[in-house]
Amino acid sequence: MKAVVMRDKQLLTGTVQAPTPAAGEVLVKTLACGICGSDLHMFHHCEHVLANFKRGGIPVDFDAQQDVVFGHEFCAEILDHGPGSDKRLKVGTRVCSMPFIFAPSGFEHVGFSNRYPGGYGEQMVLSEALLIPVPGDLPAPIAALTEPMAVAVHAVNRAQLAGDEVPIVIGCGPIGLALIAVLKARGIGPVVASDYSPKRRALAEKMGADLVVNPAENSPYQSWVEVAAPANYDIKGPAAMFSLGPQPKPCVVFECVGIPGLIQQVLQHAPPRSRLVVVGVCMESDRIEPLIGIAKEMNVSFAYGYNGDEFAQTLLDLADGKLNGEPLITSTVQLDGVTDAFAALSDPQEQAKVMITFT
Amino acid sequence: MKAVVMRDKQLLTGTVQAPTPAAGEVLVKTLACGICGSDLHMFHHCEHVLANFKRGGIPVDFDAQQDVVFGHEFCAEILDHGPGSDKRLKVGTRVCSMPFIFAPSGFEHVGFSNRYPGGYGEQMVLSEALLIPVPGDLPAPIAALTEPMAVAVHAVNRAQLAGDEVPIVIGCGPIGLALIAVLKARGIGPVVASDYSPKRRALAEKMGADLVVNPAENSPYQSWVEVAAPANYDIKGPAAMFSLGPQPKPCVVFECVGIPGLIQQVLQHAPPRSRLVVVGVCMESDRIEPLIGIAKEMNVSFAYGYNGDEFAQTLLDLADGKLNGEPLITSTVQLDGVTDAFAALSDPQEQAKVMITFT
Repeated sequence: MKAVVMRDKQLLTGTVQAPTPAAGEVLVKTLACGICGSDLHMFHHCEHVLANFKRGGIPVDFDAQQDVVFGHEFCAEILDHGPGSDKRLKVGTRVCSMPFIFAPSGFEHVGFSNRYPGGYGEQMVLSEALLIPVPGDLPAPIAALTEPMAVAVHAVNRAQLAGDEVPIVIGCGPIGLALIAVLKARGIGPVVASDYSPKRRALAEKMGADLVVNPAENSPYQSWVEVAAPANYDIKGPAAMFSLGPQPKPCVVFECVGIPGLIQQVLQHAPPRSRLVVVGVCMESDRIEPLIGIAKEMNVSFAYGYNGDEFAQTLLDLADGKLNGEPLITSTVQLDGVTDAFAALSDPQEQAKVMITFT
Repeated sequence: MKAVVMRDKQLLTGTVQAPTPAAGEVLVKTLACGICGSDLHMFHHCEHVLANFKRGGIPVDFDAQQDVVFGHEFCAEILDHGPGSDKRLKVGTRVCSMPFIFAPSGFEHVGFSNRYPGGYGEQMVLSEALLIPVPGDLPAPIAALTEPMAVAVHAVNRAQLAGDEVPIVIGCGPIGLALIAVLKARGIGPVVASDYSPKRRALAEKMGADLVVNPAENSPYQSWVEVAAPANYDIKGPAAMFSLGPQPKPCVVFECVGIPGLIQQVLQHAPPRSRLVVVGVCMESDRIEPLIGIAKEMNVSFAYGYNGDEFAQTLLDLADGKLNGEPLITSTVQLDGVTDAFAALSDPQEQAKVMITFT
């Protein structure tokens, strides 16, 4: 089958052997697959990421010397069932799935594996038990947004919001934009959003952000003060530090950039007692000043992935319009365009989600 | 008055001018004062700490070129009232106080100030409104433990324990030991405690820790598995990572060491979805691998200080025996012995709390 392959630290478009379904697995034809920031990270920092996974006991592992076909945000169509299948869903059914395989040989992450190619290839093998049919005529590229949107749903769930928080979304890439959509759908806000890119700021407005800031010109934390704090509230003053006098609404910061320095930036500039939800996957070492986190009594929640319920509900919410994913997709490419798209996405100013289609 | 002074980056024992109480203040005679790890940190990293405070907007500031008398864990006796005092507490009353002054000129931290000398001097000026009388005949050195014990009380409160957690206390210095006492007093446990020092491990047992580990020989996280997890639970296995099968009790780690590398160590070795409460005040930059925190969905709460209620209740709990502070005090010195004690405390193996007395 045709696929984009990471081979010898290069990204090549070529032909690889199509996977074959084992027991409990199905063979699918990829209909749409999003290019994720994690794919770019893995491509650029592969050895560091795998070493880090190993140190942390995270069961994602592959041999970087062998072929890897990325792609874990997909919508696909059933082509064939493996042996012993219950054929709950017929050939031709369009499906989404969490990109996981719990194989007898252990856990595998579809798209970060030598054995389970992801949606950067024409065919995949998925676990029958994890398949969810795509409702109605929801377009495949929108259904393929289930995965990144579910990340945002999970991050908001993990924040355990009481409802009175004023959130700040740092970084309006696909995950930041999805977060804005989820927060607005739940009536949380006003939502402050921040990004250096004018295109992404325009998208943030389209997704419903109430206050959109260019951090080169204005501090998102100062914008937060305008909508969340009493008059004359000074983020760095003793009244803020010691909770003296009228206090602002609770501050929750969603960090959706995932580059070194961002966590420390939030610790330093957000108001005391803020909660930071780290959604951006920073795959490099990072530096913090614990003293600042301590003195301001910050809380940091790392959020990752989603559970099965969150994933399934996200697909339903996309189908019935509760979540509007469409603005996230800023361009569509064929497999032949993926390597160029990787180069283009190194400059994150111009794109949100680049979607691979197969027509 | 006689005092130990930080002057020109040296710690000297000499004579400084006694402070005089302004409106709303009282003059007190120091009866006992603990030497705190923060005093040592401030002495060794003064410029970095002050710069960090400034960056974080923390209103603790002094001129390191001028004299500073440390000491914020004290018990004292009222000598005189400043102008306009309500004289609620009479001369001769023994008191404790949070080491803060909300002066018209701004916030001051008693013991980290050019204007408000702390308990390393024979006399202090305190805010009348913050004074709490010491109950009954509670010895002054025990009353002086109110401050560090209140830090532990606050850290436990901040952890918002549901009651079924199995906590791990990393570092059995005064704060770690106080934490063990607070956890046991609340019926939380079994408590796993870890320290390299045999003396401190013996103290941890005395405070009630159920499982005391030398991390040079055994991982505290493995000990935690023994008392908190189902059979065959593997902290780094996929069942732990994905919450498959029987799950352990919730893990809460109290980090009470405060040196670089500790936060990352917990992120790396504690079970997935642990909560880390950072109580140790690390005054240097630190390095973390966010990826590990993310993939394991860790939560990090920074805890700092206490509020007035926690402080007052801690003094009462020490007085009526709900909290036993006595084992914390491993030696007692006079002012003349403080500089030697500082040197001795650079090797944290031998001591927990060194108490300055004035008899």
